[in-house]
Amino acid sequence: MQVNAMDDNRVVIFDTTLRDGEQAPGCSMTLNEKLRVASALRDLRVDVIEAGFPAASPGDFKAVRTIARTIEGPTICGLARCNPQDIKRVWDAVKDAASPRIHVFVATSRIHREHKLQMAKAEILKSAVESVAYARSFCDNIEFSPEDASRTELEYLAEVVEAVIEAGATTVNIPDTVGYAVPGEFAEVFEYLIANVPGIENIRLSAHCHDDLGMAVANSLAAVRAGARQVECTINGIGERAGNCSLEEIVMAIKTREEFFGVTTGVDTTRLYPTSRIVANVTGMHTPRNKAIVGENAFAHEAGIHQHGMLRHRATYEIMQPEAVGLSRSNLVLGKHSGRHAFRDRVEQLGFHLDDIELNRCFEKFKRLADRKKHMYDRDIEAIIMNVDVGKAGPWVIDELQITAGTGTLAAAALSLSHQDGRRTRKAAKGDGPVAAAFGALEAATGIELELKNFEVRGVTTGDDAQGEVTVTVEYNQQSFRGHAVSTDIVESAAIAYLEVINRILRRRDTDDQRPRRAIAFGQP
Amino acid sequence: MQVNAMDDNRVVIFDTTLRDGEQAPGCSMTLNEKLRVASALRDLRVDVIEAGFPAASPGDFKAVRTIARTIEGPTICGLARCNPQDIKRVWDAVKDAASPRIHVFVATSRIHREHKLQMAKAEILKSAVESVAYARSFCDNIEFSPEDASRTELEYLAEVVEAVIEAGATTVNIPDTVGYAVPGEFAEVFEYLIANVPGIENIRLSAHCHDDLGMAVANSLAAVRAGARQVECTINGIGERAGNCSLEEIVMAIKTREEFFGVTTGVDTTRLYPTSRIVANVTGMHTPRNKAIVGENAFAHEAGIHQHGMLRHRATYEIMQPEAVGLSRSNLVLGKHSGRHAFRDRVEQLGFHLDDIELNRCFEKFKRLADRKKHMYDRDIEAIIMNVDVGKAGPWVIDELQITAGTGTLAAAALSLSHQDGRRTRKAAKGDGPVAAAFGALEAATGIELELKNFEVRGVTTGDDAQGEVTVTVEYNQQSFRGHAVSTDIVESAAIAYLEVINRILRRRDTDDQRPRRAIAFGQP
Repeated sequence: MQVNAMDDNRVVIFDTTLRDGEQAPGCSMTLNEKLRVASALRDLRVDVIEAGFPAASPGDFKAVRTIARTIEGPTICGLARCNPQDIKRVWDAVKDAASPRIHVFVATSRIHREHKLQMAKAEILKSAVESVAYARSFCDNIEFSPEDASRTELEYLAEVVEAVIEAGATTVNIPDTVGYAVPGEFAEVFEYLIANVPGIENIRLSAHCHDDLGMAVANSLAAVRAGARQVECTINGIGERAGNCSLEEIVMAIKTREEFFGVTTGVDTTRLYPTSRIVANVTGMHTPRNKAIVGENAFAHEAGIHQHGMLRHRATYEIMQPEAVGLSRSNLVLGKHSGRHAFRDRVEQLGFHLDDIELNRCFEKFKRLADRKKHMYDRDIEAIIMNVDVGKAGPWVIDELQITAGTGTLAAAALSLSHQDGRRTRKAAKGDGPVAAAFGALEAATGIELELKNFEVRGVTTGDDAQGEVTVTVEYNQQSFRGHAVSTDIVESAAIAYLEVINRILRRRDTDDQRPRRAIAFGQP
Repeated sequence: MQVNAMDDNRVVIFDTTLRDGEQAPGCSMTLNEKLRVASALRDLRVDVIEAGFPAASPGDFKAVRTIARTIEGPTICGLARCNPQDIKRVWDAVKDAASPRIHVFVATSRIHREHKLQMAKAEILKSAVESVAYARSFCDNIEFSPEDASRTELEYLAEVVEAVIEAGATTVNIPDTVGYAVPGEFAEVFEYLIANVPGIENIRLSAHCHDDLGMAVANSLAAVRAGARQVECTINGIGERAGNCSLEEIVMAIKTREEFFGVTTGVDTTRLYPTSRIVANVTGMHTPRNKAIVGENAFAHEAGIHQHGMLRHRATYEIMQPEAVGLSRSNLVLGKHSGRHAFRDRVEQLGFHLDDIELNRCFEKFKRLADRKKHMYDRDIEAIIMNVDVGKAGPWVIDELQITAGTGTLAAAALSLSHQDGRRTRKAAKGDGPVAAAFGALEAATGIELELKNFEVRGVTTGDDAQGEVTVTVEYNQQSFRGHAVSTDIVESAAIAYLEVINRILRRRDTDDQRPRRAIAFGQP
């Protein structure tokens, strides 16, 4: 949705989960995962989705183009360095969107000029102006970011901003690239620009903050108080190093303190919690229990009330309602006698929109699991929805897996796999534990050897028949891959997650998606 | 250490990990765990340790008293409501410390007055003054907190603050109890008090912020800019709901932006990372990868450099050095031929101080593990140090455990346990997965049935012989318990962690430590 830059009380929410978020170590996403996140962002009603960095790889290009063609509602934006190839590549990727945007950036701070770019001030200014003008030849919605703006000399920054506005930029974004700013000081940058840059009243000012000192949200709000009307942020605050400004925190701060800030956003806050869960699941970056807004404990006085049998006036400790962020208070339990209708209702209450095919597949999984598990809680249902695709894509499928393990002994795993092409194979392996043994057997069976970098299990539900969600992060040919799976048996989950990665590698061999990830890590706002 | 209130550039770091942090769901600690954290806080050189809420339970009292008697260096503080019993109880707990402090609080905001306390302004004022005066009869270091100060009428707040200063308070703490404040507004509270309260120049003003809107650190810094010279915070920002101001973030913000803030702290920042790891391990609240300062990705451009084979001028993206927070860049690998001396060196470089007995026990474990595992990384060594006590305390010990599991079948576990008193028992159980089966067999063998609330595994090291750290959270008689263990076999770890909880419950049956936890959850700053 295009937002009128003249509407002074509306803060544009620019989500960069798919660009800056995805650049964080271990957060890279497949095309399908990006589409799932982009759909969730559309349902959340963010104003702008920065869908990627098209020049980075053919895979990035394809993802941005697919999102531009399929996600209706938000403006779709792609990032470009200040060169014609990057800009043209963004335009080719976003041009089919109803509302496309090209975002160009170049670093302006002294330290970046001298050590990264080795360019003088005038050269950088010229490059910025030419790039904005070139971008403007394709599209009338152009964002410009002077990277490391918060450490750039104010006079030079104002000069650059003035020049890019003249060249046609419609949004100017001020990044605190290294998370160095503090609120009062960051606000002064905006105040200075507003006071000193002719024409600034005709464009939208934006803030892009990193959380290295824990102040990304506060800095963004300080910018809004000083006149910024776009905030760049990510779901769960994911992003490089300590991450970006967290979308859910900035949106709920603006909403909870609406009288103080005097601005609003267009976000449907009841979608915050489901969106957070989707991004956590897709990236494997789980939110800590004490995460503001979406963490498990964020509304934990709830638990306290039950614990003490004590009911206080809610507002004494509660400044937000759980319902406002899409967290349902009721934990209605479904079971094996629950019908499709009850299941569909619950899925919708949890904030997911499934088409009929997806709903059917999830409902089948639900019935199968309900046979094994007495009570089906919300988190069981979420786990089903978010993992419904897992293991479907092949080429290899596990037919049977047996493990034995114990103290003081080696563990053994034996398994039988079948391939789409009809082949079957049976292998066994030993290991220091049952998971290592299962991984070894999978490697022996498929011929793909992976290096395990990280292994995590989270119990997504409670009780003896709890489901465990396994996330494995591995390296293969210097690329990082992540697989996940949910089951009541964590060894089985681990094997499915590991095989998911192996299958993905085998599928990639047959496609052109062999993108050299992060070939261009050099420079981002 | 007592800090002179007249030293205007020194911000007192008041750590409340053991009080407000410990109150977070799932973060309760045993006495030994509290002592381990308190020792780490002493080594970190915090100025004040709030060690607990002595009136809450006999266990809390004992923990505060033990810390007061054994931890030398910081001021030891205990929390009390405004009544003589609570205050006397704090004094009895802290009086043996070289530098004791009594911290009394009462809520002052309208919503708390009306809905929680059902007391009028004058009654609250009287109660605060009497309590401070009573506390002062024991001790000359008295802190007073008007709970929910950020939502209290400024005139009334000033009246209360003036009265408690007259009554003898030496530190006045302004809590943003519900995490509602934003920096500019929170600073105004301090400015108002400084301008309107006679005698305020003789005491130390303090800020206590919660992170519900993601602004705890920024609010604390705004308070410092406005004149506060104490900040209350917790390691990793743990605490109720979204948690408290994070100690590592506020300390590193002050240090990194020293010229801007013009203040310092006494914290040894090179101990931040080890302390964070200890608290994460003890509480089971692991920091997310994108946590500022201490998260795995906080300095992840490091990985980037290796990945791209690209060396840039470090300061282009690095505003802090990993070494400054105690994160060692080198990842020196030890192995089974490494001697005691090399091991001790590494332990010390990792920031741990072990006595000879502890070091010997850790070194034995190291040698045993090194037989199974080729490369011993820093995280293996950390895992050994932080779990060296696990499973030692009995009464039950696992002699043997065997599991079988697989797809489409039930899992089975058989185990043999021996008891300190010489008994042995062997049991088997089935389950939906090997972990559930092992838990069932442990319950059958010990007669203790637990309700599993959460189950987590983190791979603490990488590779095929990686170690997994299991944390189980269970409920028993409406109390929450947590166990953890590390091994290369996650099913074995899970069983050890589960048995750790069972043993703790059995040991408690023989002691008076049957404290009714959270009997007094009613009201905290």
